[in-house]
Amino acid sequence: MKKVSEPTIGRLSLYLRLLMELAASGVKTVSSEDLAARSGTTAAQVRKDLSLFGTFGKRGLGYGVSELESRLRGILGLGQRWPVALVGAGRIGSALFGYENFRRQGFYIEAVFDADPAKIGEGWNGLVVESDDELERIVSDRGIEIAVIAVPAAAAQKVVDRLVSSGVRGILNFAPTRLEVPESVEVKTVDMAMEMEGLSYALTRARESGAA
Amino acid sequence: MKKVSEPTIGRLSLYLRLLMELAASGVKTVSSEDLAARSGTTAAQVRKDLSLFGTFGKRGLGYGVSELESRLRGILGLGQRWPVALVGAGRIGSALFGYENFRRQGFYIEAVFDADPAKIGEGWNGLVVESDDELERIVSDRGIEIAVIAVPAAAAQKVVDRLVSSGVRGILNFAPTRLEVPESVEVKTVDMAMEMEGLSYALTRARESGAA
Repeated sequence: MKKVSEPTIGRLSLYLRLLMELAASGVKTVSSEDLAARSGTTAAQVRKDLSLFGTFGKRGLGYGVSELESRLRGILGLGQRWPVALVGAGRIGSALFGYENFRRQGFYIEAVFDADPAKIGEGWNGLVVESDDELERIVSDRGIEIAVIAVPAAAAQKVVDRLVSSGVRGILNFAPTRLEVPESVEVKTVDMAMEMEGLSYALTRARESGAA
Repeated sequence: MKKVSEPTIGRLSLYLRLLMELAASGVKTVSSEDLAARSGTTAAQVRKDLSLFGTFGKRGLGYGVSELESRLRGILGLGQRWPVALVGAGRIGSALFGYENFRRQGFYIEAVFDADPAKIGEGWNGLVVESDDELERIVSDRGIEIAVIAVPAAAAQKVVDRLVSSGVRGILNFAPTRLEVPESVEVKTVDMAMEMEGLSYALTRARESGAA
């Protein structure tokens, strides 16, 4: 199988969301043109993205909404429940713990760790915040392969090294730092300020063209 | 000026971060090949992205790190302080309020609103959580053009309509819903589960190729 680019995977996630919305509205079939318009791309791009994973839809009839939704879930690995470890029980960790979209897509935070004795032992909706001394044992015992990092930048690399040595293969990083991992481990660093810069760019351009 | 795509703007933000790191390490010049390798793209793509905005660097000498950083800041509209309104003082709102990368890039949350009487009047690091009845007046008085939405999905559209009528032109949306806005308004919806799906995709592919 060919290496599929990150932007392609991002578009598959977006198509999945649009299909979930269409299904909720009772729509049964959708064309590549309609999916493209709703996702801000071209019909050719939609067809190309899907063709990487096999044959979809019928020429002239479009895609069956529930069939395509189900196949995208399979491609994205959403056909299972993913247990997730959260490291860092501060403000960002707490917000992520309550984030409903994770559970809706099958990602369940089943262990929370912190280094702060004041936080260890806190009850979080049925879970107990664990000491990060227990990190290796719990992650490995529970077969956890995905972790969310919500610790300060200076602590992040050490936490990641310990997670990787315990079997974690996917990391969602909210610490504002670049992480070094072996090639077999996937890291996504989320920088919400980058999204904000898309806004400041657009506002600045609009001003300039207004002034011109 | 040509319409520049969202992925291009995202890459400019990424180049800016890499340049900030290089500058912090004392590096003075960088080649398009090096920027490309650090950002997971090609040197041709780097040159193409930058060429949309003028002439950068000297053939054979690469780019001056601080010059390119400063020009990217200008392009992205980061040469000013942006006052930002935060609507929703719950867990996600609180995490975003404390998010240091916003301030580092010049985005300052200067007003926080909530509809919950229990939250209104709370002190947040020098600010007071305001009743959302005051939203139009405060946003308009302070000339706020960027807002962050951290309210439940069902409340989001109404809040956005009120913000837009008060002069907001850029919206960073954390509510899990699609928002309708006039064409002159830019919306970025952040869905952290989409990043998570990039991980489940990678882990699932790795298992399949391991099993094959």
